[in-house]
Amino acid sequence: MQRREFLHHAAALAALPVVGRAGAFASPALRTTVPLHVDGARLNGWLAKFDAIGRTATGINRVAYSDADLAGRAFTLDLFREAGLTPRIDAAGNIYARIEGTDPKKAPILIGSHIDSVTDGGNYDGPVGSFGAIEVARTLQAQRVKLVHPLDVVIWQNEEGGTIGSKVAVGLMTPADLDKVARSGLTVRQGITKIGGDVAKLDTAVRKRGDIACYFELHIEQGGNLERVGRQIGVVEGIVGLRWFEVTITGFANHAGATPMDQRQDAMLAAAKFTIAVNEAITSEAGRQVATVGRVNVSPNTTNVIPGQVVLTVDLRDLDQAKIDRFTARFQQLGRDIGAATKTTFAFTTMVNSTPALSDLRLMGWIEESATALQLTHQRMPSGAGHDAQEVAHIAPMAMIFIPSVGGISHSPKEFSRAEDITRGADVLLNAVLAADRGLA
Amino acid sequence: MQRREFLHHAAALAALPVVGRAGAFASPALRTTVPLHVDGARLNGWLAKFDAIGRTATGINRVAYSDADLAGRAFTLDLFREAGLTPRIDAAGNIYARIEGTDPKKAPILIGSHIDSVTDGGNYDGPVGSFGAIEVARTLQAQRVKLVHPLDVVIWQNEEGGTIGSKVAVGLMTPADLDKVARSGLTVRQGITKIGGDVAKLDTAVRKRGDIACYFELHIEQGGNLERVGRQIGVVEGIVGLRWFEVTITGFANHAGATPMDQRQDAMLAAAKFTIAVNEAITSEAGRQVATVGRVNVSPNTTNVIPGQVVLTVDLRDLDQAKIDRFTARFQQLGRDIGAATKTTFAFTTMVNSTPALSDLRLMGWIEESATALQLTHQRMPSGAGHDAQEVAHIAPMAMIFIPSVGGISHSPKEFSRAEDITRGADVLLNAVLAADRGLA
Repeated sequence: MQRREFLHHAAALAALPVVGRAGAFASPALRTTVPLHVDGARLNGWLAKFDAIGRTATGINRVAYSDADLAGRAFTLDLFREAGLTPRIDAAGNIYARIEGTDPKKAPILIGSHIDSVTDGGNYDGPVGSFGAIEVARTLQAQRVKLVHPLDVVIWQNEEGGTIGSKVAVGLMTPADLDKVARSGLTVRQGITKIGGDVAKLDTAVRKRGDIACYFELHIEQGGNLERVGRQIGVVEGIVGLRWFEVTITGFANHAGATPMDQRQDAMLAAAKFTIAVNEAITSEAGRQVATVGRVNVSPNTTNVIPGQVVLTVDLRDLDQAKIDRFTARFQQLGRDIGAATKTTFAFTTMVNSTPALSDLRLMGWIEESATALQLTHQRMPSGAGHDAQEVAHIAPMAMIFIPSVGGISHSPKEFSRAEDITRGADVLLNAVLAADRGLA
Repeated sequence: MQRREFLHHAAALAALPVVGRAGAFASPALRTTVPLHVDGARLNGWLAKFDAIGRTATGINRVAYSDADLAGRAFTLDLFREAGLTPRIDAAGNIYARIEGTDPKKAPILIGSHIDSVTDGGNYDGPVGSFGAIEVARTLQAQRVKLVHPLDVVIWQNEEGGTIGSKVAVGLMTPADLDKVARSGLTVRQGITKIGGDVAKLDTAVRKRGDIACYFELHIEQGGNLERVGRQIGVVEGIVGLRWFEVTITGFANHAGATPMDQRQDAMLAAAKFTIAVNEAITSEAGRQVATVGRVNVSPNTTNVIPGQVVLTVDLRDLDQAKIDRFTARFQQLGRDIGAATKTTFAFTTMVNSTPALSDLRLMGWIEESATALQLTHQRMPSGAGHDAQEVAHIAPMAMIFIPSVGGISHSPKEFSRAEDITRGADVLLNAVLAADRGLA
């Protein structure tokens, strides 16, 4: 009901002359009480159509550089054009389009996301924020709201393959990365060529500190927190840092029948103790740190042989780098202790190590202000998953807006976000952009 | 030193006329004090030659029905012939040879083992007892010791593939078993044909209760108990019963970064708790029961996904069937409790279920009497591994003689038993046969 009254206000505003509306928005009295709204039906209509592209029996398959990805990009380029924007593809294959601001000296406000999917994924992870950004631009155009800053909309290429497009944009791409084979079977290098980029000119795609005023990304939560607590908007405090270890536990393989219990060097028993110790350690103190033993390979993995070796992984994440370092040391100590107790040895290898990317507090404030003005419930939360925003954070202030994922499911054909939540997220993005435009120097 | 003195006695005896020796042995005064001896050098020489058959870079590969198995059988047939015996292959492909006794109405004493190996195995598991039995027969022939009972030497086919030859011999083979594919790639049916058996006449290979007076099998321990306690001979009290479960633990796969610790249904965490609970339960009471979680398959088995399902196996063994049943119930209860505590479900399936095969107390006594006469240290122990003797136990009294495995290692190229231990084991077998021949009705 509250929201309906609200649309009523917005409809009234829409009847005002354009300058009046923008002016009304700039007036302190109305600033936080009369937000703008996107066309949610239009936005959700695009998503519904997009669902057909790359849809297979096992889920959405628009992996980067695939033909389905190309089809998705063509669809998206059309959305830009329908919005009256002129998209361009940079050397990295990222798609950009600009609405000029009133002050040509200002760095642009950047909004966007990605449209590529994982293998057997869903239709919401990426497209919600991508089309949401295009809809925000279209709404501004349609309602003739003029920003001071230029507004750039970006569609990053190959987010799911390791935030490739945004990595190039912040200058973190290495030649070795270019030669990695993506899920499509093409190398990143080949993929960039296929989607219209130019690997020889990648440096032209690199943005420096100061080139971007700020970055907002709307995204589905990919977890069940918002749904569980019944909040409509997540204000992302940062993207957690992540450390992946591979732990090799070596015991001694022996006959399961002929070896007494007190004579064993059972690598699986040691792995079990370690799995529980990691879980107990990570839950032993307050905070939102997480640790997961996700991959476990037992050798020889035979019913009647005591496991001689187990290789397992630990995925450790938190917003606080010091906490990641502290738990790293603790897990290693637990490995040593359990190894000594079980007559096994533990060897740790770090596979992946990414530092936390913290959101900008002013941007978070503008998101919260917008959500409040829209009478949406909201809460701060970390993003446990990686996003292009974590790359942009290297050179510009950023923040992310999350909307609920039904059942917390993502990277799955079952991934689903409700149309009303998608509209709410885009509304928050729109008003956060307006607030940033006012608030930024 | 004790043993050297002993050989001195035996050498003195060997100088006596044959009848005198046999007669002397039969005299109550000498019965337990003057044992016979095999030719240990000859026996170990056979084993050394046999090591070349099926030897590959990764270990001994004489899997049943392979060409290497055929070559091993040909070698073994020659050993029989050299010993003055006439081997025959029964319809099951088992090799038998007989020394007639003085009383043609007596059922035979049976001794033997197998010569097939596991994949990448060693040269001792099977051949020690097989060649040991041939050497015992050869010694009896050479020293012209005449038994009252016939003596049959048997080489069971395909022990490692599930005691196939001995299963046929006791009438426990099913048509379905015949169609199972063995490690060689042939079905058991094809294998039997390849090694000279006749699947159409398998019933002629079946022995009934009363057909065999008793069965002795010499074997390496396949564990480290004898070595650890420094005993030379193991007197096997029985072959443990075995129950294999497959346990399917179902949780919910979810994002390792975006799912808070208290919102997880982590099947691997549940599997770890169960693995430890099984270990704690089995070691919580006195006894030689063992339980092993040997195979663990995690799904989706990816670093950044909370495991949604784990399928693991439990191998449970003991000499006491009631204890196996009791631990089965306990493990199932532990699964239910851990499932409830971790928001996962546990489903148990029994894969294999074999009852304990207890050794005959009189036969054990004769083995102990022989070891004592040979001044060998000995102890009673269960066999944690399966053997052909467990099949024979269905129709005849049986007992087994174990010798030490260095480092407790078997089913490995590192499997090794010392020549002197092999000789000692064959000496015990020889004298146990003589004792049984005297002691049996």
